Amino acid sequence: MSEDALPGRVRIHEVGPRDGLQNEKAVIPVEVKAEFIHRLAAAGLTTIEATSFVHPRWVPQLADAEELFPRLADLGDVRLPALVPNARGLERALALGVREVAVFASATESFAKANLNRTVDESLAMFEPVVARATAAGVPVRGYVSMCFGDPWEGAVPPERVVRVARRLLDLGCAELSLGDTIGVATPGQVTALLAALGAAGVPAGRLAVHFHDTYGQALANTLTALRHGVTTVDASAGGLGGCPFAKSATGNLATEDLLWMLEGLGIHTGVDLRRLTATSLWLAERLGRPSPSRTVRALASQLDQEPTGATGPFRPSPAPSHKEP
Amino acid sequence: MSEDALPGRVRIHEVGPRDGLQNEKAVIPVEVKAEFIHRLAAAGLTTIEATSFVHPRWVPQLADAEELFPRLADLGDVRLPALVPNARGLERALALGVREVAVFASATESFAKANLNRTVDESLAMFEPVVARATAAGVPVRGYVSMCFGDPWEGAVPPERVVRVARRLLDLGCAELSLGDTIGVATPGQVTALLAALGAAGVPAGRLAVHFHDTYGQALANTLTALRHGVTTVDASAGGLGGCPFAKSATGNLATEDLLWMLEGLGIHTGVDLRRLTATSLWLAERLGRPSPSRTVRALASQLDQEPTGATGPFRPSPAPSHKEP
Repeated sequence: MSEDALPGRVRIHEVGPRDGLQNEKAVIPVEVKAEFIHRLAAAGLTTIEATSFVHPRWVPQLADAEELFPRLADLGDVRLPALVPNARGLERALALGVREVAVFASATESFAKANLNRTVDESLAMFEPVVARATAAGVPVRGYVSMCFGDPWEGAVPPERVVRVARRLLDLGCAELSLGDTIGVATPGQVTALLAALGAAGVPAGRLAVHFHDTYGQALANTLTALRHGVTTVDASAGGLGGCPFAKSATGNLATEDLLWMLEGLGIHTGVDLRRLTATSLWLAERLGRPSPSRTVRALASQLDQEPTGATGPFRPSPAPSHKEP
Repeated sequence: MSEDALPGRVRIHEVGPRDGLQNEKAVIPVEVKAEFIHRLAAAGLTTIEATSFVHPRWVPQLADAEELFPRLADLGDVRLPALVPNARGLERALALGVREVAVFASATESFAKANLNRTVDESLAMFEPVVARATAAGVPVRGYVSMCFGDPWEGAVPPERVVRVARRLLDLGCAELSLGDTIGVATPGQVTALLAALGAAGVPAGRLAVHFHDTYGQALANTLTALRHGVTTVDASAGGLGGCPFAKSATGNLATEDLLWMLEGLGIHTGVDLRRLTATSLWLAERLGRPSPSRTVRALASQLDQEPTGATGPFRPSPAPSHKEP
């Protein structure tokens, strides 16, 4: 295996404001959300999933989408996609001038039923006019596929099921697909198998993003595996936001900072400033009242503490070791 | 890249009782340490680094090596290596009937100075009679190489420096080398580069182990990379024990459970029972008074809570999801 197989550039699809915050119990003021997104953009992120136009009863935390979007008007070229579950959500988004949207399908019947109260086919039928209407309005659509590797009710998910849903979403007109390990159980062999199956079915890696949760600590190893198979778009959440409701754990999405540490080490360009992003995650963690679950954020926190805000030099070496063993 | 390159079997070198506990402030009773090691062995671990024969002033937590070893006499075939820093430490170990030992060298001058108060060459000279005496007594010696990728004072470590120390340790008679990312900064490209450099210098991958710390969340991705390059021995610490003194973080070594989750998913045999190991880490976390930093331990904790001790069925699916997004 050669490092040559890795891409020179990766686009990070930042999901912190949406996937990261949606399970927060206490409602976060819209001003804080807007500042969070502005800080993410200032750190160099060019795609920031901002919110969701689902019914407020489903996700109370994101009920303020109409108030949030006007506060992002100055962000110019930054891509700010939003989730839309159905035609009603799409109309709300279009009325606000949202320029990119995403629909969310499931690879498994159990999760389609739990999440959308529909069969997989019924949900795809529901998305059909949504994708058509968005595309006609010049708004590209991302298609999420949840439960691509494991499902809490059904166990391991056969790649063929993901391939079928992926093909359908592309045929509907989705511009990009995001393969979700919603419960964070996948391991690298499954990633290889799924990407191979998708490739064999004519789905080009350039249309794919990967979306790993770090519930079992596998997210970065899985992402590395996907990069080696031609994927160049990676979903991640600043600070590792996104508490998973399936486990007594603070771990959620792959932390953007942990991803950046690896990509920088590999010489892969992202355009994101790790130092500024870490400062943003520390700022938000203070507002949420608990430390970030990102290893990199925690490790860098002490270094940022020691420096004036806005310092741009290289990270200083850590303090001298105090132990006496390897 | 094919999954074929992965090994069918991996030996886990469990370092929890030594590397994991050495930085604990409150001294842990020797009975707890002995029970910890017995539980690790009962979970199927066959190599458990038990303690260190350094001077008690250096590592007060491990000052009870003479009391600990007699309590492990019933462990039969389990390999129980111990660190020895010098000839005096080796004699203490041999007097107790220790059957495997390890010396610890550094790839960098700064850490050799800080850790051993010697130059790299002076420390290798100090190890020479230790390795000779142990080998003559039929006791195999593992050679740790610290700071193989990054050093807090020197920054990135050129592979040639590691190769030089590695070759010297093998020439002294070390049976195995463990390549340490002591401050947890490495990324997969560095792992590939170092293993290639060692291979080119005639060091076979079968003589190597990798020893990653998870300070920046990179340990598992780095381990995966090493496995693809022929390494089949991996150091890990139950529950991710081993607080790193270099960062305000609870993260230490690669957690054995996170490693096992990946290896099981890849179909790689270890002989270790993840369920029993997780129960052991939860048991120890209670004694240490803080949760395990291992993602897998946290994710599985709720499942183990719901089951009678000793249950051996498959893990039950997680509770139904309560959120409404991908």
